[in-house]
Order: sequence, then C-alpha cells, then structure tokens
Amino acid sequence: MNKHAVFHKPESNYAYATAADTVTVVLRVAQSDKFDRIDILYNNKYDFTQTRFTREAFKCASDGVFSYYRADLTLPDSRFAYIFRLVQRGVTYYFSEEGLSENYAFDTAYYTFFQFPFINSADVPKVAEWTKSAVFYQIFVDRFARGDFKKDDGYINTAWNAEIDRYSFTGGDLAGVREKLPYLKKSGFNALYLTPVFLSPSNHKYNVTDYLQVDPNFGTNETLEELLTEAHAQGIRIIVDCVFNHCDRSHAFFKDVLEKGRRSEYYDWFIIDGDFPSEEKCNYACFAHCAYMPKWNTNNPQVRRYFTDIALKYLETGFDGLRLDVADEISHEAWRQLRREAKEKYPQALILGEIWHDNEHWLKGDQLDGVMNYKLQKILVDYFGREPISAASAANRMNALLMANTEQANANLLNFLDSHDTPRFLRFTGGNADKVICALCLAVVFPGMPCVFYGTEIPVDGGGDPECRQPFDWTFCGRSQSYAENFGAVIALKSKCAFVGSRAQISATSGVLAITRKVEGGSVTAYFNVSGRAKKVGVKGETLFALNYADGRLLNDGTVVFKNKDN
Amino acid sequence: MNKHAVFHKPESNYAYATAADTVTVVLRVAQSDKFDRIDILYNNKYDFTQTRFTREAFKCASDGVFSYYRADLTLPDSRFAYIFRLVQRGVTYYFSEEGLSENYAFDTAYYTFFQFPFINSADVPKVAEWTKSAVFYQIFVDRFARGDFKKDDGYINTAWNAEIDRYSFTGGDLAGVREKLPYLKKSGFNALYLTPVFLSPSNHKYNVTDYLQVDPNFGTNETLEELLTEAHAQGIRIIVDCVFNHCDRSHAFFKDVLEKGRRSEYYDWFIIDGDFPSEEKCNYACFAHCAYMPKWNTNNPQVRRYFTDIALKYLETGFDGLRLDVADEISHEAWRQLRREAKEKYPQALILGEIWHDNEHWLKGDQLDGVMNYKLQKILVDYFGREPISAASAANRMNALLMANTEQANANLLNFLDSHDTPRFLRFTGGNADKVICALCLAVVFPGMPCVFYGTEIPVDGGGDPECRQPFDWTFCGRSQSYAENFGAVIALKSKCAFVGSRAQISATSGVLAITRKVEGGSVTAYFNVSGRAKKVGVKGETLFALNYADGRLLNDGTVVFKNKDN
Repeated sequence: MNKHAVFHKPESNYAYATAADTVTVVLRVAQSDKFDRIDILYNNKYDFTQTRFTREAFKCASDGVFSYYRADLTLPDSRFAYIFRLVQRGVTYYFSEEGLSENYAFDTAYYTFFQFPFINSADVPKVAEWTKSAVFYQIFVDRFARGDFKKDDGYINTAWNAEIDRYSFTGGDLAGVREKLPYLKKSGFNALYLTPVFLSPSNHKYNVTDYLQVDPNFGTNETLEELLTEAHAQGIRIIVDCVFNHCDRSHAFFKDVLEKGRRSEYYDWFIIDGDFPSEEKCNYACFAHCAYMPKWNTNNPQVRRYFTDIALKYLETGFDGLRLDVADEISHEAWRQLRREAKEKYPQALILGEIWHDNEHWLKGDQLDGVMNYKLQKILVDYFGREPISAASAANRMNALLMANTEQANANLLNFLDSHDTPRFLRFTGGNADKVICALCLAVVFPGMPCVFYGTEIPVDGGGDPECRQPFDWTFCGRSQSYAENFGAVIALKSKCAFVGSRAQISATSGVLAITRKVEGGSVTAYFNVSGRAKKVGVKGETLFALNYADGRLLNDGTVVFKNKDN
Repeated sequence: MNKHAVFHKPESNYAYATAADTVTVVLRVAQSDKFDRIDILYNNKYDFTQTRFTREAFKCASDGVFSYYRADLTLPDSRFAYIFRLVQRGVTYYFSEEGLSENYAFDTAYYTFFQFPFINSADVPKVAEWTKSAVFYQIFVDRFARGDFKKDDGYINTAWNAEIDRYSFTGGDLAGVREKLPYLKKSGFNALYLTPVFLSPSNHKYNVTDYLQVDPNFGTNETLEELLTEAHAQGIRIIVDCVFNHCDRSHAFFKDVLEKGRRSEYYDWFIIDGDFPSEEKCNYACFAHCAYMPKWNTNNPQVRRYFTDIALKYLETGFDGLRLDVADEISHEAWRQLRREAKEKYPQALILGEIWHDNEHWLKGDQLDGVMNYKLQKILVDYFGREPISAASAANRMNALLMANTEQANANLLNFLDSHDTPRFLRFTGGNADKVICALCLAVVFPGMPCVFYGTEIPVDGGGDPECRQPFDWTFCGRSQSYAENFGAVIALKSKCAFVGSRAQISATSGVLAITRKVEGGSVTAYFNVSGRAKKVGVKGETLFALNYADGRLLNDGTVVFKNKDN
C-alpha cells in the first residue's frame, strides 16, 4: 500500500454534514492500490471505545493519482467518532488521527479517533431550492439588447453592428433585457446573471461610481425594479454582479480622500501608503495594477457595513442573488457578515463568488454558496479545444474538481463555457460549433448550474476582450437549424433530467467520457466522444440519453437522443 | 519520488499569513524522499505569468512519514501566486493546483497556480501579547484553598484532608484563591485557569444553573471582582471556564420547558424530540449521556445571543479570557459571533477551546485562539510513562502536532500534563517525580502556554476523577527540596528564555529528544533523555540549558542547568 497517499481531514471536503443526522466521509488512497475492502468503524463518540458500527466505503472517484472512497454515516445522536479499516491482501490496517497502523488501541481511542463532534444545523450549508433547477444566461448589458430608444444616447459611440473596441458604448440596457425576457424563457433559461448595472464611466461598469444608482446608460432604478418584477412574473430569477473589491476613482469617497488625504473620514476605507493617494504614484491598493480602480479596505468594519448594506439593498430591490466580483481578494470577515445578514432575511438568496482557484475555504457554509467554475471551464477548453486532452485526463480533472468541495458547494458551481473575461468558446474549438454543443451539454450534466454567455446560442466567435463582448446579433445570421435544435435540447436537459443531488460518477473508457448523475428512480449517463478514435459508444439499459461527438460530427443524426428504459 | 506524498493546501496550516506582507508556505513530501532543493516560485498574481521570484524552502519538520518544507514569502503587493519547484537527482518537477508534473505552462498559470489572493489584516489571527509569556495554573476551585470561614458551610460534606468521592464538597473558594495569589506569583505563575465558578449543584460546577451568579459555595459576585482586581494588581491574569454546551436541569429556562413543553419560549433553546423533555426517556440532546445536563441548541440565534452576552459580561467583569468547555459540540456560528463581539471590545482576551482532536477548522482566525493541547498531553503520557515510546516517536508526533496548525494557533496551545479530566501525571509515570519535572519542562519549552494543574508542585498522585481532584495539601508533606528547586527552575524557564515566535525544531538523535526554540539573538535547545539507553547528551555551543533524564535520575545533579555562550 502507498501509505503516503492515505488522507482524510475532518471538517473539510473529506468530512461534512449533508443532513441533520448524516455525515459524508471520504478517504483518499492511491489509485494504484487495490483493497479487499475499506470500512468505516463509527459510533457516538461517547460509546466508540466500547462498540462500533461498520459501514463499507465505496470508490466514488479517481483522479489519475488518487482514488476516493465514500460512505454516508448516520446516527440518531450525531456525535460521530470514526476510524477507517483498510484490508489489503488479507492484511488489516487502521487509519486514525494518529496515522496508519496495523493495530489500533480502542481503549484510548478518545485521543485518536477522527470525529465530527456534533451536527449543528446552523453549520450545515443549505442549497437554495431554486438553484437546483437553475439554468443561467449571462448578459453583458451594454451588448445584449437595447430597449429604450428615448434615452439620452449621446454616450453611444459605436453602432450596434459596427466593430467594437474596449471603449465602445453600443446602447444595450435594462429595458432591452426586459423586452427579451420571453425570448430567454422560450430558450429555456430561468435565471440571469447581469454584469454590473450601477453608475460607472465604463461600458462594463466593473468600476463603480455609485452602488445604488442604476447607470443612466442602462436605465433608472425604476427600470431595474420593473425588470425584476417582470422577470419574476415570468419565472426568471436575476442575480447581480457586485463589485465590492474596488470602485472607480470617481466614487465620492475616494474623491474625498483625494481632496482631504488623511483628514478624510474615508481615508481608512482605502489602503493608502502616504498622506494622500496619488494616481501617478499609485501609492494605494487597487484592482490589479489599475490606478483608476482603488481597492476598498474590507478590513475596516465600516466598509464591511457599507457593502453589507448595499447587498441587502440589492436583495430588497428583488435580486435573487449576488455574484461577487474578485471575491478572493476581499476579507473573509466581509463575506461572513454579508452572508449572515443576507441569509437571515433572504435564505433563498444565492451568493456566488468569482474565485478561479482552490476555494474550499470560502465554501464551508460561512461565506459563499458557490463559485464561478473556472476549473471546469479550463477542462472544457482543454477537452473540446483544438488539441484535446484525453477523455481519461478530462475525467480525472473533473473528479479532482468535485472531490475538492462538499456536495452543497458543488450544487452551486456555476458551469460556463466562456465569459466576458475569456475568448468565446467557439474560438477555443477552432470554429467547431458541434463541440460548443457538446461542451454545453457537459456543463448542463455536470453538478452545479449551467450558465450560457449571451450569443452562444448563435454561436458567436471572438477572442478576448473586446471581441467576446460584441453586440448580440438579433438577426441570427448563419445560425443552422441543427445547431438551434441541439442547443435547445441540451438546455432542456436540465429540467428534463431533474438530477438529484450533486454527486456524479465520471469515468473514461476507450476514449469515451461518461458522466452519470442520479435522477428520481434511476440514473442518467451522458457520453462524450471527442477523440474521434473511439468508434462505438455503448448505451446501456439505464441510459436515458447519449450525446456523442466523433470524427467531427455528431452521432445520432446530430441531435440529442433521449432514451429511456422502454425504448 | 513518492508523488502521492506531495501535498499543499491554500488557506490552511499549509499557507497562512503571518504578517501584513508575509505568507508562510509549507510543502509536505515523503520523509524518505531526498531533494536537491525545493523552491517556491512566486510573484504578485497579476505578474506571475511573466516573471517570478525564487525562494528556497527548507525542511522544518519530519513526522516519521512526511517531511515538511517551509518558506516565508514577502511581497509589497500581497497578492501571492506561487508554485513549487522540486529538484530530485537532477530532474525538475513542478507542483501546482493541477498536481505534479515535469512541465508547467506558465502562460496559463492564472488557471493553475496556488494563490494567497490578498493578505487582509482582518483575517490574520493575532496572538494576544500577554499570552506569549503566560504560565498558567489550573485551579479546581472546591479543592484548592478555602479563604472564607464565615460562609454558610453546611454544604461541605468532606473534611479537607479526608478521602473524597465524586460528590464531595470540601470548601475551597474564591477567597482562598485570592489568599494564595502571592504563593502563585512566587511560584512563577502569571495566569490562572479556574474551573467553573457559577451557580451549580455540583462540586465541579460544569452543570450550570445560573451563568451570572457566582456559586455561594465559592463566594459572591463581589468576591469574584475582588479576586480579579487583586490578581491584576499582582500581575496575574485569570481565564474562566465557560460551559456553554449544556446546563444543569435546574437552569430556569430548562425548568420552564419541563413545565410548559412546546409552549415555553425556551423550547427551541434545547434540542427536544417530543412535546416535553423527559429525563426518564432522555428525549433531548444532553452532555454525553447525562440527562441532568441538557444541551443548549446553539443553532438558535437567541441562544448564541445569550451566551455571547454572558461571555461579554465575563470579560467586562475582568476575566482575561475564556476557556470554552466542550467547544467542538457547539455551533461554529456561535464561536464566530462570540469572537467577533468579544475581540472588538477586548482584543487581548484569550479564547481557548476544549477540543481533543483535529482542531484546525476552529483555529483559522474566526473562532478560537487556541485549544487545550490534549494531543501533547497524550505524547507526554506516552513518552514519560511507564512504557515509554522512543524519543524518535515522540519527536515525530510533536512535529505532526505543530504542522497541523498555523503558528498563531500554536502560540496559544495550552500545554498541560494532566487536568481534572485525567489521572495525575505522577500516576502515569508510576510515581517517578523526576519524570514529572521533565514532562513539565517539555510543556514549558513546547510552543504554546504551559499550564500546571494545582498540586503538581508537590507532586500529588491519583487516578481519574475523583482521585485527581483531591484538596490541595498545604502542608506540602513529603515534598523534596530537589523537586521543589527543579519545579521552580522549570517554571522560570518560560520567562528566562523568552522564546520568540512559536516555531520549534524537534528531533531525536541516539535516543535523545531535542527541542530547539528561537530566542532573542539565538536559540535554546532542551534535551530529554528518558530511555536510559543513551548515555551521553551533547550540549552544543548554542545550548543555553539542558535538562536530561537518564537511568531513573536527573543528570546535572538533578537540577536544570543554565548555560549560555559564555560558559
């Protein structure tokens, strides 16, 4: 046995409560190690030294290096003490907080067992009900649709169908979004993620001047309320981009500091090295290296109060959730406060963060519900891109991704192919639209919530900013009928399948990637065959649909094929 | 290389901020693997793809299975991106969030590097200044000293020098503690940990009836205030045992529920299965299986408010910190709230929890400062006990313990030999008092805060409860002069050495255990030789003292020997 591979960690993605009486426990071992069986010995911590229950753990995932064994433990008195018993070629090993050994002293186990001391409901992350069936559509507001043709449009410097640059204003607005709600609903979306809509001198509005005033380019606070009301009436939820990491230099508080320096009551709201902030010297913390976007000091409790109040105001206005920009550079205390106060009043509010990297520390129930799933996005790019990694490699990386967090956190991963911060997915595939469909299908089938960046339904091409942010082509030029049908069918999968929970079995056989999810009364497997090398795709009795891609064309007549046990 | 052994985890004991511009980063590898060198490549995350700094990581600990390499990274802009570069026999490996590989794609590193996104001061745990030199003395109040001979002592059922049982009341009180402050100060203690002092029908008072009224057996609220004032005047701090997990059945709120059942406004303050709690059926959560100690429902925000207010009241009264009983069975949210409100008003308050097991999740800066160090206590028992483990094994376990948490958390470990919940340490050593001294020395030299259970200065013998809780023998019968001198010298080590930081180098050579700590301008090494097999103990130039135990006797004439570079 590779003893160095054996790993477990209490109160983490390896041990977490999933119900009032249930703890999910995971053991990591080397993938190359085979076991006769792995059991978990457990009991109420006050009884463990005397008697134990035994629950076999089963392999739930492998990532190419490690395999993961999982079991759900249930006790009426939820004070869990547990150790692992691994049997390999007839030899028994015990794994406890003291490590791996062939003997275990049960009489002094109260020093060495792993424990989940008590399931406190306040600490068990809950998944907002509506997010389980959410299918998101991300809208870059200036570029999606213009609805208000009476507004002062002097700011528009680029015609809707003209070539854009990073400084283009093309006229999209909230009225346009509202007008297109029926289109979005018909397309199968029930949730929108809007990039920032509040006062800002830029087209993207990630540098905010006033957090509580809708930018006049986009409409008024009333327009926003109307949009929210109308969206809700149509069964569409909306989350808003919250840029609490930094603001624009034109924000009143930063201007006050520019003017008064240390004497400003807002001096400590920023992180300034010197008596006055200087844009030339950039002697203050800012977003990336952008002096025009000064960073807020979220270590200051007044700043945390300010943004918590703003977030509450957004939810009060009717937003169904918050997408927190640059979430990882903001104080954890800020997110704890925001979550505490937001969830108290709005328990169904979704709190999503932009974190591209390891994010477990934010997803333990006290801060965020989920994150933008950039790790999956990179896998999609690598697997469906022009130099595809193997199905096995993709499966390994997806398994590693899922095992890195709790099931509750995985349920709120936002699975997207591309965003305003990446090239268009069609660009990654080298113009292959079928692969866009396949990747979208994977994003739908993967645990979490799929999210489509506006224009993918055409699909549009484009590199990074500004190319990925072109105005939506409402003429749908060049859109093929089969793409449209496939797109619609894939989006519909989410409600059609109604996946249960956020577990997935992901594996690769003969170059075919398979993702199996639980559904009411059975399971669904989606097969992906991108390599072109595997000629056959097995569709078993349990399979409800298969979407296969091989040799540059979609199998099954290029459509999503639904099968059930009867046919 | 054992690739399965290589481990790192952001925002954990493997990566944490130790200053406004410094992140401490740790890489775990197999102890059996030797490396040409291990470097950390790092830079501001917005520059990392272009250029990197290189910092060599050095082996800081080994635990018998793994070795740990550490480096402190510093950047003026504290947004750290980093990966590890391991060189073994001329072959270079990179370790990132994507795992181990011989090549690393720096151009897409923004997807795969490890990161510490920004050092936010609000999230960096601070160590209360006074705890750095704290030497604790734990007092079981009914058994330490009686000062008030005028009180109604009808409750006393056992004479001070008579044999006790679990239900004995012997008359110790807060006036007695106050009277003995000069003795404690002279003995080298500057901090007291009092077991609970509030209204309770038991002698230990871990089942509280009223959290805000001092138990009349022990005195009055005024007696408590006088004790605190006098202690502070003498430079002695006091922390109090807070039993927020459960109460006594006589607590007014539980009585109300007993009477009114679901109609009681306190019904949801407990966790009851049924309309009424029934002691016979024990149909409610309680401490362990003790029906007379109903467990509080700390998932109820009202309960959290109640205990936060009580904790604030304790600190307002003058307590310097809180020792939280059964800390691990209480909601994390409760501790977050308590810490937030307590530290805002009393930043120097110490918040210690009773957690016997893996505790990292509580010690990340949002909940507790430190824990009762039961892991060390078990090592001391195993190493200084009658069937001693090897020095190597002890060193391994101590290294594992220290690597399991941040340095800030390690600074607030409470290092004790025994407590009211264990047999006396003299019992573990089979009556060998010299070993008690050696163990105490280790507890003093180990990172954290030493804590002596009352009577260890005699030392007293005894098994578990009630034997370990006998009244203090103020006649000091049988106390040897050399024990007294050694005890005093060992206690004095803490202030004499004035260790800097909470890092330690711990190793074993030829059966001799060595613990090296940093001090101003150098380092100190304590040597322990318990096996009796190693005949020689090397004392190097840097050694300031050596305390050696061999063949059943203390070397160096049985005294702690202080050496410095000059002699």
